[in-house]
Amino acid sequence: MRTRPRPLFDRVAIIGLGLVGSSLARVIRQQRLARRVVACDRAPGVRARVKKLGLADEVVADPAAAVADADLVVVCAPMSTYATLGRAIAPRLKPGAILTDVGSVKQPVAAGLGGHLREGAHLVPGHPIAGTEHSGPDAGFAELFHGRWCILTPAQGTDARAVARVAALWRRAGMRIATMDAGHHDRVLAITSHVPHLIAYTIVNTVSDLEWHMKAEVIKFAASGFRDFTRVAASDPVMWRDIFLYNREAVIDMMGRLYEDIALLQKAIRSGDGKRLKAVFARARRIRRSIVQAKQD
Amino acid sequence: MRTRPRPLFDRVAIIGLGLVGSSLARVIRQQRLARRVVACDRAPGVRARVKKLGLADEVVADPAAAVADADLVVVCAPMSTYATLGRAIAPRLKPGAILTDVGSVKQPVAAGLGGHLREGAHLVPGHPIAGTEHSGPDAGFAELFHGRWCILTPAQGTDARAVARVAALWRRAGMRIATMDAGHHDRVLAITSHVPHLIAYTIVNTVSDLEWHMKAEVIKFAASGFRDFTRVAASDPVMWRDIFLYNREAVIDMMGRLYEDIALLQKAIRSGDGKRLKAVFARARRIRRSIVQAKQD
Repeated sequence: MRTRPRPLFDRVAIIGLGLVGSSLARVIRQQRLARRVVACDRAPGVRARVKKLGLADEVVADPAAAVADADLVVVCAPMSTYATLGRAIAPRLKPGAILTDVGSVKQPVAAGLGGHLREGAHLVPGHPIAGTEHSGPDAGFAELFHGRWCILTPAQGTDARAVARVAALWRRAGMRIATMDAGHHDRVLAITSHVPHLIAYTIVNTVSDLEWHMKAEVIKFAASGFRDFTRVAASDPVMWRDIFLYNREAVIDMMGRLYEDIALLQKAIRSGDGKRLKAVFARARRIRRSIVQAKQD
Repeated sequence: MRTRPRPLFDRVAIIGLGLVGSSLARVIRQQRLARRVVACDRAPGVRARVKKLGLADEVVADPAAAVADADLVVVCAPMSTYATLGRAIAPRLKPGAILTDVGSVKQPVAAGLGGHLREGAHLVPGHPIAGTEHSGPDAGFAELFHGRWCILTPAQGTDARAVARVAALWRRAGMRIATMDAGHHDRVLAITSHVPHLIAYTIVNTVSDLEWHMKAEVIKFAASGFRDFTRVAASDPVMWRDIFLYNREAVIDMMGRLYEDIALLQKAIRSGDGKRLKAVFARARRIRRSIVQAKQD
């Protein structure tokens, strides 16, 4: 007789069933990490798909109803909904319940989602660094998180057992766990993810402003550089709007550094300084190799 | 009894056996597109690998010797070698021979490679838009060109049969063929390929200038945006130096347009203009979809 591992949670509520939320629901169902999964989404179309796909035991529209009796609430909704969501759900959490999220910016979570938290409930902000350029419950899959990092940014003094339980959830999803200060997280992500996306969005838009004849050819012959950029630029517009609004300062700081470096490279091109160009490109290649070695390719 | 298709060429000389040159050699050998393949590379290490891999019937160091009696010469060497190569090989080509290349910038080819061409030989500049971030003869593979576009930029008045024979070669390698003006090619590629690479190189370098502690984390947590950029930035430094030196004007023009768009987006971030951000991101996503539909993903 096979013994089943004990579920990590009794009742998990997932708020927002997009790419990440629906992928997490799949993981929880497949591995039976919770006795009961409640899915909550404000979009009727998403709720219908979640029911059809069988991702949850209950599918509801009201976040307050979803979190009642939950011992874990995972917010996978856009960050711009956090303040409203926090007001609606935080006061309803039962004592000992854990509230976590998957947002890409961590500093605003304490005030937004955790602003109305009652004593006895625990806030453990999290960021599973995993995604694709697709969105919605049909785009999710249980393997999304495999081998990727999940960064947790609990405030000092957060209950260690609550942090450990959230870590255990993501570990079971296949992730590696790191814990750091929320502000530090936001600066690291600004340069590794947010600024690259900003540039990708811009390049794609610059192309769409070209004279129409040329634009058609740009799309037709889309070479590797542009193709990779457009893939990055295909991610969810609301999610990215929120990222830039909530991580404004770190993004603008990193953009400033980038501008300086672009200006230097552009000057080397203008003046025909091949030696400098080659040195810069060779250096970039070495950095790439260290990333491949870090197995994050 | 199986009939073998007649080879397209009697003797093909490939100058430069890097990723593209060695991939083409593999295609020609596998499909017997030539009776004899001569491989020429100035690097002894590359010549040794080409022999070991069995990519050619002859492996030589001297370009002038390689092209003697060839009816097709394909230059797959960095563009900075074109002037020297052109002087060495163009006067040696037999009447009716075709000289083509695979360089990423097309306007300088006529003067560089074709400057010393004798009457009766034909110059058909070409650009198979295919590549990976890897370099060298071991990185090549026959399927590299499958389903991609090859752009030919023959000058007005070029022998139509010569153009058709070069087109036939790339078609047999699995490519789709387009013909256009060299200057137009260089502007299209500046925005689809060269500027994206320039930004990718810059971002990777900006990261490598960060304080070391943060840099380690950036590499460790390399999120999707940055990871994609470093892949782009891993391409051959000499090839890219040459691209920026030879397509200087178009690259600087497109960078100017990009700057304007980045400034607008940055202003929207700074002023918290979520509506504008979302509109820009949604538009980028639509462009991405049109590329996916054009099957260049």
